[in-house]
Amino acid sequence: MDRRYRLVLSCPDRVGIVSMVSNFISSHGGSIADANQHTDPGCNYFFMRVEISAATLPFSLDALKEAFRPIAQSFNMEWDITDSAKPKRVVLMASRESHCLADLLYRFHSEELFCEIPCVISNHDKLRSMVEWHGIPYHHVPVDPADKQPHFDKIEQLIAEYQADVVVLARYMQILPPALCEHFPHRIINIHHSFLPSFAGAKPYHQAHERGVKLIGATCHYVTEDLDAGPIIDQDVTRISHRDHPEDMVRLGRDVEKSVLARGLRWHLEDRVLVHGNKTVVFA
Amino acid sequence: MDRRYRLVLSCPDRVGIVSMVSNFISSHGGSIADANQHTDPGCNYFFMRVEISAATLPFSLDALKEAFRPIAQSFNMEWDITDSAKPKRVVLMASRESHCLADLLYRFHSEELFCEIPCVISNHDKLRSMVEWHGIPYHHVPVDPADKQPHFDKIEQLIAEYQADVVVLARYMQILPPALCEHFPHRIINIHHSFLPSFAGAKPYHQAHERGVKLIGATCHYVTEDLDAGPIIDQDVTRISHRDHPEDMVRLGRDVEKSVLARGLRWHLEDRVLVHGNKTVVFA
Amino acid sequence: MDRRYRLVLSCPDRVGIVSMVSNFISSHGGSIADANQHTDPGCNYFFMRVEISAATLPFSLDALKEAFRPIAQSFNMEWDITDSAKPKRVVLMASRESHCLADLLYRFHSEELFCEIPCVISNHDKLRSMVEWHGIPYHHVPVDPADKQPHFDKIEQLIAEYQADVVVLARYMQILPPALCEHFPHRIINIHHSFLPSFAGAKPYHQAHERGVKLIGATCHYVTEDLDAGPIIDQDVTRISHRDHPEDMVRLGRDVEKSVLARGLRWHLEDRVLVHGNKTVVFA
Amino acid sequence: MDRRYRLVLSCPDRVGIVSMVSNFISSHGGSIADANQHTDPGCNYFFMRVEISAATLPFSLDALKEAFRPIAQSFNMEWDITDSAKPKRVVLMASRESHCLADLLYRFHSEELFCEIPCVISNHDKLRSMVEWHGIPYHHVPVDPADKQPHFDKIEQLIAEYQADVVVLARYMQILPPALCEHFPHRIINIHHSFLPSFAGAKPYHQAHERGVKLIGATCHYVTEDLDAGPIIDQDVTRISHRDHPEDMVRLGRDVEKSVLARGLRWHLEDRVLVHGNKTVVFA
Repeated sequence: MDRRYRLVLSCPDRVGIVSMVSNFISSHGGSIADANQHTDPGCNYFFMRVEISAATLPFSLDALKEAFRPIAQSFNMEWDITDSAKPKRVVLMASRESHCLADLLYRFHSEELFCEIPCVISNHDKLRSMVEWHGIPYHHVPVDPADKQPHFDKIEQLIAEYQADVVVLARYMQILPPALCEHFPHRIINIHHSFLPSFAGAKPYHQAHERGVKLIGATCHYVTEDLDAGPIIDQDVTRISHRDHPEDMVRLGRDVEKSVLARGLRWHLEDRVLVHGNKTVVFA
Repeated sequence: MDRRYRLVLSCPDRVGIVSMVSNFISSHGGSIADANQHTDPGCNYFFMRVEISAATLPFSLDALKEAFRPIAQSFNMEWDITDSAKPKRVVLMASRESHCLADLLYRFHSEELFCEIPCVISNHDKLRSMVEWHGIPYHHVPVDPADKQPHFDKIEQLIAEYQADVVVLARYMQILPPALCEHFPHRIINIHHSFLPSFAGAKPYHQAHERGVKLIGATCHYVTEDLDAGPIIDQDVTRISHRDHPEDMVRLGRDVEKSVLARGLRWHLEDRVLVHGNKTVVFA
Repeated sequence: MDRRYRLVLSCPDRVGIVSMVSNFISSHGGSIADANQHTDPGCNYFFMRVEISAATLPFSLDALKEAFRPIAQSFNMEWDITDSAKPKRVVLMASRESHCLADLLYRFHSEELFCEIPCVISNHDKLRSMVEWHGIPYHHVPVDPADKQPHFDKIEQLIAEYQADVVVLARYMQILPPALCEHFPHRIINIHHSFLPSFAGAKPYHQAHERGVKLIGATCHYVTEDLDAGPIIDQDVTRISHRDHPEDMVRLGRDVEKSVLARGLRWHLEDRVLVHGNKTVVFA
Repeated sequence: MDRRYRLVLSCPDRVGIVSMVSNFISSHGGSIADANQHTDPGCNYFFMRVEISAATLPFSLDALKEAFRPIAQSFNMEWDITDSAKPKRVVLMASRESHCLADLLYRFHSEELFCEIPCVISNHDKLRSMVEWHGIPYHHVPVDPADKQPHFDKIEQLIAEYQADVVVLARYMQILPPALCEHFPHRIINIHHSFLPSFAGAKPYHQAHERGVKLIGATCHYVTEDLDAGPIIDQDVTRISHRDHPEDMVRLGRDVEKSVLARGLRWHLEDRVLVHGNKTVVFA
């Protein structure tokens, strides 16, 4: 695909936003390659994402932002413009379960996911070889159950050091402290192995087996202070039957977790996910 | 399809059950047209459903039961044998929402569902014409919010009078009193308009909208004293997006409710649902 | 929902289309309630659909069209503007199978589908009572296999007489003559009971059973001269197994046919389907 | 799971098969852990799969086969008994596309798939490092387009040398010569990247894009002489839209291919797939 500038914005709805934005683009000769918009009548809020062919605009990314700023301010927008040619830096965190990590590494390796993975962090040393085969540094940061704070301090330091744009909890299994969550709003993505809000917390497949549900699911969401309650990016389910023991559900669930997390991360990397309150607008 | 005897049984697992049952059948010349079995290692329980071509056995239904009884007793089975040619009597209950009722009536009318529908009961008079077009009596039994007991007494009387084999709450929207639930164990089927256990109780689509989920669902279950907590027969979901307001979710959800309820009822009518504890084994 | 004007257009892509259209709208104070656009880089074509709150524009529908015409001409657009308050007139055609007809009638009756159904036409008299219960005229137009032309002449006359905006072949089972197809381009919708292009032609479920596929499907498409080859609006599938005989596939397929046809018709009624060449852009 | 003997059989249907088989098992004290059966009334054929807890039988695998042989002969069965503790030997073949290969390697590595992978064969050298990281020999067997026979001879030799129980064409992209197909009936599994019988042959995603379908799929089947026409083991689909270019379809299709192939192979490894004529019975 050709290089694109991605303009993403949200603001209180009123007449003239699309007109102002599209005039701005066309007045500089910009060719719109893709565009989505959404108005939420409940909160009277407007959301927009536009991809402009970078070659058709006479701007660098910084100059484009500068030129757009007055419009953004006049409409009181939350906004950003990104360059599709600039990969985001994704720090992956995992524990002992490898399926989500392996899946993301493969999609990265095969260039399906356009990003950089500067490092993988784990509280166990188990997945080092798999990660290092991909040429990615592996940081084993053990957790002392009696005092987890040093672990989280080290993680925060690594995230800063590697200049992560986004952190992915690929079945990391530790609950992040509120302070860490707050430092990275809408920049930490988790995969929970249930169809939230059902079966939040620990051992969701066992909870699902106990209840006798006929579908199991997975939920990809931004991490907030409230455990398993952040804005949902994507969810999916798969059918099970009475034949499936909890270990079958774990196995079947892995494939759902992998695809939901990969899809959610992809959308995030392409600036398709806009958060408003505790919900997401996903221009998929 | 040719006429079948359906033998359904469950009992503590041990060696020799299948052998004893299949010997019984073949020793009388019975031809097995379909068979399913399941062993739950968690509770060491065995479940079986066998369809035998009725014409190949020298028994009436009653004589067949009599002949099988000693085997059932020796294995301490919960069991039943039914005749596929004998339609079950299904009493439908509805309120003001017509989609599930209309769907079941159509499937009955088009002979997709093999059953009798001796009457429809509703706490409103709104759907009378639709029901009566199908040649089915319609009973309007109003609810006095100050004292609902007379309503439920009347319903229990109608269920008895019409000799219902199964009662279907096709969006009936009233909570049945515990006594009524206990009188008809595993014989009252409800459709709940959420993917249980998420969003039990009232207005599940609004709850789902509030939470920002990406799929909505419906759950067909047997009614027990515990609201929305009975054994689940079937569930399904459909994808929604940020574009969908609660009224869109209501609309999209209707199709899921209809198909899940119709499937659950069909399985019940064909004796495919075995309940054990708070879970079902569905030999679909 | 509030009343909307729906502007739908397609034209060769170039810089400035969105800007021109949105300026036009905002310069008259129009509030955009929903908008979608798509650029097909393969054929360099642009597609757009905009919903404008009618109350925010100082135009009648005709005046709005008049005002927009110069823009449309300058960009060489195929275009139309419709009024969401004006229901389209849908003539339904059926044969002996009632499931799609009953499903559409119910959705009409329950006001889920916003349209008028001025009449139902069938080559059999079987479904008269069901149709007339809805207060809709039923025309039985028999087919003489030796000379089908009088049948099609009569149908064309009825379509004209009832001023149909769209004709739906709800399992009508007759192949329309090319002339009739040409008279109503992109205005005749058919449901084919297979996942096209697999199993075009007669008895698709039997073809599917013969081949041993593991999913069966249905396809909603605009009718063209080429049988089962017109632009596809929607498709869906359902899982089957070795247990399913052709008659089970017919039964399971009915639910897919119903939902795919209802969805396709809904999108058509809401002006969400744009045809280009032999493909559709669906702004769902 | 405990060790199991898996008895798989098919034969012309008649009274007494289940009885004879289950008597045989129970008379030796065998505990049935799982069982499935199916009667196809179209061809009057009977199919059965029984898992027996190995520890409950006084037989080695060979002795069990010997003991069962007379029954098998008297019913004219095609049959086999396998030992769940004995992994099948799976030779993987790939070309340049790595997604199916990487997926199967991961499932093998994580012990989700119980098998041995004695080697991977490819007509390119591209995937060597990935394969060798798993400790599996990689054979690069180039194809000379002018004379492919030496390539296929070498492959047949490797299959024999490594004593493959099953060969998986994980996007191998070469058409096997009829002789090779015939040597391994129902033992070569292919993944085709379309929903067969649609879009057989080359470049199915481009064919699908051309036709404007709304779902794309993948098909896992046994390889026969007739290209893309062998018995189907599993299929699945995913939704696409007008936004998806052929390269998007390739990307989205990869996930379907991976899951369908992995599921099909798993079923094969667990002896769940019975072939009759050109169709499969899958006791999933």
